[in-house]
Amino acid sequence: MANGGKRQIRFGIFLQGGGGHWREPDVRADGAVSIEAYQEYARIGEAGKFDFGFIADSAYITKDSTIPFLSRLEPMTALAAVSAVTKRLGLVGTFTTSYSEPFTTARQLASLDIISDGRAGWNAVTSALEGVARNHGHDKLHDHALRYRIAAEYIEVVKGLWNSWEDDAFPRDKETGEYVDLDKLHTLNHVGEFFKVQGPLNLERSKQGHPVIFQAGASETGRDLAARYADAVFSSFEESGNLAKAQAQYKDIKDRAVAYGRNPDELLLFPSIQPIVAATHEEANRLYEEGNRFIDPAYAVKYLSRYFSFFDFSQFPLDEPLPELGDIGKDSFRSTAEYYLRIAKEENLTLRQLALRATNPRGDFVGTPEFVADKIARFFEERAVDGFILGGSHANLRNFVDQVVPLLQARGLFRTEYESDTLRGNLGISFPENRYALERRQAVVQ
Amino acid sequence: MANGGKRQIRFGIFLQGGGGHWREPDVRADGAVSIEAYQEYARIGEAGKFDFGFIADSAYITKDSTIPFLSRLEPMTALAAVSAVTKRLGLVGTFTTSYSEPFTTARQLASLDIISDGRAGWNAVTSALEGVARNHGHDKLHDHALRYRIAAEYIEVVKGLWNSWEDDAFPRDKETGEYVDLDKLHTLNHVGEFFKVQGPLNLERSKQGHPVIFQAGASETGRDLAARYADAVFSSFEESGNLAKAQAQYKDIKDRAVAYGRNPDELLLFPSIQPIVAATHEEANRLYEEGNRFIDPAYAVKYLSRYFSFFDFSQFPLDEPLPELGDIGKDSFRSTAEYYLRIAKEENLTLRQLALRATNPRGDFVGTPEFVADKIARFFEERAVDGFILGGSHANLRNFVDQVVPLLQARGLFRTEYESDTLRGNLGISFPENRYALERRQAVVQ
Repeated sequence: MANGGKRQIRFGIFLQGGGGHWREPDVRADGAVSIEAYQEYARIGEAGKFDFGFIADSAYITKDSTIPFLSRLEPMTALAAVSAVTKRLGLVGTFTTSYSEPFTTARQLASLDIISDGRAGWNAVTSALEGVARNHGHDKLHDHALRYRIAAEYIEVVKGLWNSWEDDAFPRDKETGEYVDLDKLHTLNHVGEFFKVQGPLNLERSKQGHPVIFQAGASETGRDLAARYADAVFSSFEESGNLAKAQAQYKDIKDRAVAYGRNPDELLLFPSIQPIVAATHEEANRLYEEGNRFIDPAYAVKYLSRYFSFFDFSQFPLDEPLPELGDIGKDSFRSTAEYYLRIAKEENLTLRQLALRATNPRGDFVGTPEFVADKIARFFEERAVDGFILGGSHANLRNFVDQVVPLLQARGLFRTEYESDTLRGNLGISFPENRYALERRQAVVQ
Repeated sequence: MANGGKRQIRFGIFLQGGGGHWREPDVRADGAVSIEAYQEYARIGEAGKFDFGFIADSAYITKDSTIPFLSRLEPMTALAAVSAVTKRLGLVGTFTTSYSEPFTTARQLASLDIISDGRAGWNAVTSALEGVARNHGHDKLHDHALRYRIAAEYIEVVKGLWNSWEDDAFPRDKETGEYVDLDKLHTLNHVGEFFKVQGPLNLERSKQGHPVIFQAGASETGRDLAARYADAVFSSFEESGNLAKAQAQYKDIKDRAVAYGRNPDELLLFPSIQPIVAATHEEANRLYEEGNRFIDPAYAVKYLSRYFSFFDFSQFPLDEPLPELGDIGKDSFRSTAEYYLRIAKEENLTLRQLALRATNPRGDFVGTPEFVADKIARFFEERAVDGFILGGSHANLRNFVDQVVPLLQARGLFRTEYESDTLRGNLGISFPENRYALERRQAVVQ
């Protein structure tokens, strides 16, 4: 670990979007489909020595979908295009385990990992929208539990394929003519409950072994999956301003890792926040309020409904507290939906208030650079997070890099230079030894 | 059409590989997995004003696979990374219709098309290797006819999804706040024999409407599929040196397009060749022979076997003519396999000779720049081709650009500047009007 062994905070940055609301004067109106806008986020992240860029995803829209979802770049192609203009930033994309071929996912991620020379990451999700199923030959969404059983086997297959070649399988010795050592090629021959995949993968391992695995489901089953397979957990915005809740979430994830016999330092927790910094609190608040100026309440209500299988909230009056709604989000984005139902009840929110909270989350990381740096440091030092994934406009994130990062560096909490040229290396996660090489080494020892 | 309406030749360039045999002193030994090597091919092609770069593909290997196939980049990720360092070169990748989700293929290709601002192309193939099936949950390869029935429906679905948004669906007017016109969003609702895909696609159309479609199967069913759906046909090397055969193939493809009610100028034929130019014929021949110096005969025999479902040719003596082998390639790369069996018989080739012909095809485009330019011009003018896809080392292709391209330009047969910034525009293929916009326009006229 760098800085004399002192635990270091990590940062990710959301890459997608135009860099602010599309109607803002200095934002590209077509930013949702502009690779230049994505690449600009990546440059901001790399200038800030951030660990990775992150792309969330979903593959289903209707006429009720909101603007950021109607038309946007697909993550694999976007990350590959970002890789060409960056050198150190990790590249983490969201790819479903529910409606795709594990061989193809393993192969594309491995290829991104080679192209970026060891900077790829996979945020494995199970897809919570019924329409995604209907885009892929199914009539109905698999229920939550089934999706997670499929996900576990899917990840096993992908990791298995990433072990097809041992790390030193390609000597490529021009003198001797030895290109490959075929004894270091292994065929998976997976036959499971959901998948049958022979292998091997036609791609060698990268400098970081294989892509880093993220997991984003915050439900009980989601956290369990993370503890078994993931290197990092992306948790969404809503709980991240609450220190006690974040600490509980952190302890839960780390305890689960330990229960699976893992080192808890090898499973990192990253809530997302949208920091806004300015010279004064008032100015920062003004910047936040300005971000609401283009948000139409009807749009905000549609945005909210996405977390509830497109439940029709518009049946309720905009400016009255919401009624009791039962478990309407249980087979969709379960934990997010539960959060919104809970705060609506606890804070007696009107539909308008709740919808704006969903569409433009304010959170508690809004203020002067010192205030935001203090808050980040406290969450980190009090073991509520291992880092944050930062969202917001290009302008707000540039301000964060220029004004908050130096304060964290001065405290020795954040790197001044990348420690490694791989994502895994920068995150401080162990190299995943090839399983066949490991078995052979262990056989020799015994 | 440019140059006063004179028909123009087109060029593609193979992007994959290290830029020559891995043991050559000036070639990267790890070129098969080096995005820099791919990007260098792309730069050579763009310097030559070529229409497109092309990536062939296959997703199955065994210990008997040959070096170029053991470990190589996946096409979608590679093309996206190439897009970031090019401005005009089309980007054509090979993606199977047999073992993937049409929604994902449609989406990734559309995303590549947006990222490259209208330069994407799809070489639709059906996968001829049994192991590919076993990597994707199947025990056996679908037979040839079934693969092509699936392919036809698959392409219909993909093209259908590419019509989800009309071209002017996104006004993104900052003044009025009108981001999208939802009347221009259309849901596919495809239910067919093999696929059930609801849609719509969550990505708008690109500057060229949608990606250009290539097709590479040269069998009867393959050519029929091309005539129905493709904008261009990639035909492999073996027949391309024979003018009469190329003319027959050309006429066949164009006639088939006409039979489907299409304009034959909108279905372009591109055989692949490996040109080698030098100051004299002797020097060019020497360069070709030099290309054989690192080829091990055992390796060449393995390479050959790939076209025959890994048929074991090593059971035959290396230096005796091959015996009668029946139809051993019929469910694999059918037309290529038939070609090799035919020339083995016609030319009474030994196994060694046939294997070298497969591994390092010489062809007839080897000689002085004038000789090669003459030959290309003759094939083009005598309606045997619309262009060529060029393979070979970085050095040989740089020589082609520097020495042959100017001769073709001087004859007015090849552009001196790109006519368009889209692949479709440079190929001279019509913009594919959105099918719903077309229907509405036709309804108004009637």
